[in-house]
Amino acid sequence: MINEFQLIERLKFLIPRSLQGRFPIGDDAAILPTKGGKCFLFTTDVIVEGIDFRIRGKERASPEQIGHKALAVNLSDIAAMGGKPLAFVAAIGIPKRFSQAWIERVARGMISLARQFKICWVGGDISRSDKFFVSIALLGEGETREIVSRKGAKPGDLIYVTGKLGGSIQRKHLVFTPRIREGRYLAGGIHPNAMIDLSDGFIQDLGHILSSSHVGARVTLDQIPISEAARDRAKGSEKKALMFALSDGEDFELLFTVARNKSERLEKSWARQFPAIPLTRVGEITFRSGRIEWARSGKSVSKLWFRKKGFAHF
Amino acid sequence: MINEFQLIERLKFLIPRSLQGRFPIGDDAAILPTKGGKCFLFTTDVIVEGIDFRIRGKERASPEQIGHKALAVNLSDIAAMGGKPLAFVAAIGIPKRFSQAWIERVARGMISLARQFKICWVGGDISRSDKFFVSIALLGEGETREIVSRKGAKPGDLIYVTGKLGGSIQRKHLVFTPRIREGRYLAGGIHPNAMIDLSDGFIQDLGHILSSSHVGARVTLDQIPISEAARDRAKGSEKKALMFALSDGEDFELLFTVARNKSERLEKSWARQFPAIPLTRVGEITFRSGRIEWARSGKSVSKLWFRKKGFAHF
Repeated sequence: MINEFQLIERLKFLIPRSLQGRFPIGDDAAILPTKGGKCFLFTTDVIVEGIDFRIRGKERASPEQIGHKALAVNLSDIAAMGGKPLAFVAAIGIPKRFSQAWIERVARGMISLARQFKICWVGGDISRSDKFFVSIALLGEGETREIVSRKGAKPGDLIYVTGKLGGSIQRKHLVFTPRIREGRYLAGGIHPNAMIDLSDGFIQDLGHILSSSHVGARVTLDQIPISEAARDRAKGSEKKALMFALSDGEDFELLFTVARNKSERLEKSWARQFPAIPLTRVGEITFRSGRIEWARSGKSVSKLWFRKKGFAHF
Repeated sequence: MINEFQLIERLKFLIPRSLQGRFPIGDDAAILPTKGGKCFLFTTDVIVEGIDFRIRGKERASPEQIGHKALAVNLSDIAAMGGKPLAFVAAIGIPKRFSQAWIERVARGMISLARQFKICWVGGDISRSDKFFVSIALLGEGETREIVSRKGAKPGDLIYVTGKLGGSIQRKHLVFTPRIREGRYLAGGIHPNAMIDLSDGFIQDLGHILSSSHVGARVTLDQIPISEAARDRAKGSEKKALMFALSDGEDFELLFTVARNKSERLEKSWARQFPAIPLTRVGEITFRSGRIEWARSGKSVSKLWFRKKGFAHF
């Protein structure tokens, strides 16, 4: 059985550095520098029936929601870099039994989100397949000096997260609004040192920032913003709810680190700009490379306290 | 049962014109104008196990060939516009039973072709799926005034095709070299009025140029360059071989139309530039919109003479 992260590491290793572009592979989107300090951002994400959404049963997605999610997960990657999305292409795999009307509803879900963010749908491909899938590639742009990657976190930085975490599987993963505006606001104003979108779950995605930045983190568990959906799922157990918030995938919130001296400005301006979206300081970056220390009620707790691993897309 | 072309037409109709970018959807690649008369080209193509290649049986592809084809079909779209390919992202769907070593061989097939055309592999995504698929999105660039689309063919233009046609299924569709150099040479020098790559088969792809350009064509059947593979498949029947050359898909040659006064220059310069690649004049563009007239030994023949439709990817 292939491990997703191992395979990605292995493929990155196989691709000669000279073929990876100016910036090596490994962020939410690739950075392609152009002229005048600008750059293009380029990303792809595929969603597959039975893995990323269901079309039958209690947890089934509507075709509009599938279209929405297919585009939204790509937008979230551009958001995590602080970029502005521009245009996308979509390759769609369609099983024989699917009707044209159903496919059109998927397209409507994509079009509706594209309109919201004023991006263009410029091309595509369709093919037969056994399971329905939508593979989107999205092009964005930004000022190169503003783009935020996973790898700039510095010891002493404060760690912030937008929104509330956990339980996304109940509904949010199908209907979430990608944090494009918030990502652009952060990149243009406060300029975080590192940023990522929460797709694999807080623990794993924080781990991606730490390993890319060669730093560690101290997380204050009392501060983790737990969603109502995570609490519902936990049926009254606060510990379970916290566990869901830390390990459930597909929150598609932003996780970022900011130099300590910017925190006051960040918190004040955020509350003015995005009054409806919680912003929570959940910890700080440390020197202890790759290591996460967990604190609860002022005391250290073992990582063994968490049982569940992050969400596996694979 | 959904018809591929009908569905694509329907999806194009659904996407508001304002969301389709400066140029409407409908060419081999989308044109995204940038500054200084330049533009980006953006395209996507997905290949799926059991549809675009087989992994078992007599006609099976090696994993390297699958990787090669996945990238080559995208390159062919950029070639058909006369563009220069730059960078791609790949989303790969992997069934459970597949080994990491096998996936790495697919990647090697992509890397080898990327190196040949000096393009960058800048990102990707992997997901579980029932059938193996590779969905690639490729970014290219060009001078906007040089880019050749499907829709500029003019009555009186001569119609040319590169290479030899038919029987690609026997091997060529897995190993072909996309006509990037040839496409760029044509776009920069002779500047065809319209161009397309042969993926659906000569009849269908000529039809795409005709309907986009609102013109017709007269094709001289005696001139159609028939491949050895098509002759093999036809087992001695010249008529069958011709039918294969006209209707088999995935030749990935270039089909283009050129103003009559450029033909001498084209033919001479081509022979110098690409001595190993046949270039054949196969007909001319007419006023009779959407209509193809067929001639054989100087006489008109009915289209009913052809039985087989073009290749269906779907």
